Amino acid sequence: MTRTQVGIVGAGPAGLMLSHLLSLNGIDSVVIDNRTRVEIGKTVRAGILEADSARLLADTGVSDRVLREGHPHEGIDLRFGGESHRVDFRALVGESVWLYPQTDVFVDLANARERDGGDVRFGVSDTSVDVSGPAIRFTDSDGIAQEVRCDLLVGADGSRSICRAEVPEALRRHSSREYPFAWFGIITEAPRSAPELVYAHSPRGFALISQRTETHQRMYFQCSPETDAAAWSDDRIWEELQARVAGPDGFALKEGPITEKTVLRFRSFVAEPMRHGNLLLAGDAAHTVPPTGAKGLNLALADVSVLSEVIERALLKNDPDALDAYGPRALDRVWKAQHFSYWMTTMLHSLPAATDFDVRRQLSELASVVGSEAGSRYLAEGYTGCWPA
Amino acid sequence: MTRTQVGIVGAGPAGLMLSHLLSLNGIDSVVIDNRTRVEIGKTVRAGILEADSARLLADTGVSDRVLREGHPHEGIDLRFGGESHRVDFRALVGESVWLYPQTDVFVDLANARERDGGDVRFGVSDTSVDVSGPAIRFTDSDGIAQEVRCDLLVGADGSRSICRAEVPEALRRHSSREYPFAWFGIITEAPRSAPELVYAHSPRGFALISQRTETHQRMYFQCSPETDAAAWSDDRIWEELQARVAGPDGFALKEGPITEKTVLRFRSFVAEPMRHGNLLLAGDAAHTVPPTGAKGLNLALADVSVLSEVIERALLKNDPDALDAYGPRALDRVWKAQHFSYWMTTMLHSLPAATDFDVRRQLSELASVVGSEAGSRYLAEGYTGCWPA
Repeated sequence: MTRTQVGIVGAGPAGLMLSHLLSLNGIDSVVIDNRTRVEIGKTVRAGILEADSARLLADTGVSDRVLREGHPHEGIDLRFGGESHRVDFRALVGESVWLYPQTDVFVDLANARERDGGDVRFGVSDTSVDVSGPAIRFTDSDGIAQEVRCDLLVGADGSRSICRAEVPEALRRHSSREYPFAWFGIITEAPRSAPELVYAHSPRGFALISQRTETHQRMYFQCSPETDAAAWSDDRIWEELQARVAGPDGFALKEGPITEKTVLRFRSFVAEPMRHGNLLLAGDAAHTVPPTGAKGLNLALADVSVLSEVIERALLKNDPDALDAYGPRALDRVWKAQHFSYWMTTMLHSLPAATDFDVRRQLSELASVVGSEAGSRYLAEGYTGCWPA
Repeated sequence: MTRTQVGIVGAGPAGLMLSHLLSLNGIDSVVIDNRTRVEIGKTVRAGILEADSARLLADTGVSDRVLREGHPHEGIDLRFGGESHRVDFRALVGESVWLYPQTDVFVDLANARERDGGDVRFGVSDTSVDVSGPAIRFTDSDGIAQEVRCDLLVGADGSRSICRAEVPEALRRHSSREYPFAWFGIITEAPRSAPELVYAHSPRGFALISQRTETHQRMYFQCSPETDAAAWSDDRIWEELQARVAGPDGFALKEGPITEKTVLRFRSFVAEPMRHGNLLLAGDAAHTVPPTGAKGLNLALADVSVLSEVIERALLKNDPDALDAYGPRALDRVWKAQHFSYWMTTMLHSLPAATDFDVRRQLSELASVVGSEAGSRYLAEGYTGCWPA
């Protein structure tokens, strides 16, 4: 049996960042995850960090690698009607975002926890939580049954959270929205096709051209949720992607071998409350957003930033009421991000039932947004996460 | 048989304003309408004029009554979560809108045409148009068959336009969207409940509190399109309206006898092309917008403002290609207004299939818009019609 102050289920960015932030205040924690460190490190996810997220990594001493190896993006390209329209974040809100893959965020956090002597147990199994204890029970990677008793239990265990299920049904409020499409995501071994992310509206559906490294790029295109990724040849994928970004300006993607093909289903989801007694939920365990706004990882980091503050007040200043502030503070940002992600999604994707009116209204909306400094700045505030307080 | 340069079907604001603007350039026109002058003068419609629309009336010599008797509104109240949030147009975009009923616009225009010796024939019947002539044939109010031959034929004959039907089916592009709700509109004999228009989002559905005069007010609330207005008692209407604007601030409507009850169905619709040979469409004949953005009358006036310019070039400067510019120039504004009206509609109304997520996302969108100078200004640009060029 291990005793700690905060038991954290989930060693993704949310769980590890929380453990790191708590340790800066001298608060002990144990983090467990069913996945191995190698497995998590291979999970390809989002790649855009808000400036606040990048600062959180650098300023709290996790690593400044994001500032050295990440790429500041000062805008995005909204492409519609076959033309590119740059939204200049730096000029509009004075902030950039950072292209820095979530896997690198994980690697930085796992290394920092190891460097600082954090207690992180990867590759455990049979995990269960006891909120009344509170305690986490599991079998460790050596096959030995373990129990971690704690003062506070944090569920940072992703969209299929086992911790979330511990909030009694009568107290839960789950809000969600399904979308009648998915994303076909690829990784290709090719040079960059554009310096910044290209969000493309097209009569064939949405496409997103993003970057990873000098040699590998990430691209997506809207598809039916029933799509079988394996059935698509490289040629067919390139044909579809090229068609969605084509225009009179001759913009074309730089092609290369496709090394990964996956279909990402997505939804909007918010679980409330984010706190139930000594149980606190953070990141994907409490909410998921469509990937269009690149908000998932940023919300997770924003959650644990608030959570570490209230835990510090609760445990070090002996103010148990401090935990009450967590949900309301975190949810304000969560709902703003939910709206932003929904807006970007519905403005850019083709809906299966869309009429000619709907498509032309979308184009008119896109033209209104890029044609207005106010519209562009409103979008930039959402994308960079610089919402007015 | 009468000969004129421009034959105009429809003596609503679009047709009369066009006739007025043409006469300023010495271009003859004849305007006919199936309705009598009294009938049109009794049609209660929109009551908000963009500043450009008010200026068009005053500066071209129709009447300056709008400036004397209209009420400048420097903002609106977006009410949600039981709280009021003012959007200050004057501060955001430097413009007001004018509360001035469409019937008064009609009266001013009809008086101006009469004053200036314009040829307007009200109360005609059996109207038909011949686009190849072009000509308008009808029976006048004295029962005598008439023919007006013209160089150009303008369809300003509203949403059930007979002129629109003359564009060959193979060349038509009609885009539309239906909404699963309608507006229950009332006129009440009561003092003003608020100094400016109140756009209220509520769990019971949308409500709009507007003003007409010192003694009569216009209010609306979202209802099912199947609603039978006559079946609603005054008490039930007031109960519903009060519930939709209620909040902790104690805001309540000033009640009075209800003198009119109507259900307004609404849709989004755009007919293209707006020009076919010598036939030109303007106002509701070419497009309808949901009333939420108060754009219908303003679009009609903007259409004929462009149209009078191109007709002047076509007829006086002998440049028939000038007419080609009409559709593209008018449609740019039409589609911006279509998006704005759709946006206001979907942000504020309850959709029958809405989930808890959808409602909370709407509230988050409203909070984002009023919480951001950029978001508020983007809305103000649309509402005042001050779109960046």
